[in-house]
Amino acid sequence: MSTGLFVETLPGQPIVDFVREFEAPAAAVYTAHADPDVYVRWVGPTTYETAVTAWDHRSGGAYRFVQREPGRLGEYAFRGAIHTARPGELIIQTFEWEGAPDQVSLDIMRFEDLPGGRSRIVGRSVFPSLDNLRSMLDDGMTEGMETGYRALDDLLREG
Amino acid sequence: MSTGLFVETLPGQPIVDFVREFEAPAAAVYTAHADPDVYVRWVGPTTYETAVTAWDHRSGGAYRFVQREPGRLGEYAFRGAIHTARPGELIIQTFEWEGAPDQVSLDIMRFEDLPGGRSRIVGRSVFPSLDNLRSMLDDGMTEGMETGYRALDDLLREG
Repeated sequence: MSTGLFVETLPGQPIVDFVREFEAPAAAVYTAHADPDVYVRWVGPTTYETAVTAWDHRSGGAYRFVQREPGRLGEYAFRGAIHTARPGELIIQTFEWEGAPDQVSLDIMRFEDLPGGRSRIVGRSVFPSLDNLRSMLDDGMTEGMETGYRALDDLLREG
Repeated sequence: MSTGLFVETLPGQPIVDFVREFEAPAAAVYTAHADPDVYVRWVGPTTYETAVTAWDHRSGGAYRFVQREPGRLGEYAFRGAIHTARPGELIIQTFEWEGAPDQVSLDIMRFEDLPGGRSRIVGRSVFPSLDNLRSMLDDGMTEGMETGYRALDDLLREG
């Protein structure tokens, strides 16, 4: 059962709030974000192949990954610095698509257990400007999240 | 000659823009942010003693420093992750006062040369909420910046 992605932009502010529930405990959903071998298997858009080129998932660490559409030239690279990595609870990290250099946003993801072995991510993405937020939305940010989280549902179901 | 700090909050947005000019080239002002031995000598509030406890000033690095008021107990600790460190040009980093845990902002500082060996910082601080921005302003954020930059003027004059 997919519970869907709830997304809300704060009026006039460069902020997107989102909530997504999962049929698995917070610890498992957190690990799917922290372990690069798991991360590349679900991060959206799922029609792309993802390869990690740097991964040091700790407070004060950093990450970088590259996505390619199979059969096409060109790639999309993303990188960030990890401010907080608190296992099972909280990730606060920066995010940059290298195709829009120096446009850096801040992602805050709280992992919260729910009754019955379920959990949710309560997230906030803070962008450096309203223009940057608009272009990220136009570039399919929420669709990428939705397809990624559905792939994560499948992975969590497999255990 | 101090040229003063220009600060502007964007109406209804958790963003503070600032501009500060210096009587020194951008490379020197950047170094004063990147070299921990220089940084502790000017960062505000200048009535506090500053000690660096972690410092890895590169893209993907991190920092932490602690401030103490002489003759008093207690300390104020600050830490962040460095997204971009491009010498002489750009710093993008996160910032957290550990007294307000998990309230993390994003600082973007562009270092720009001006004619006559002068330069300016064009900065933007992006906060995770309007409430967090208000409390940082109430806690004297701009006064800390002003006194710090005046101390930096003195250091740059000494060469």
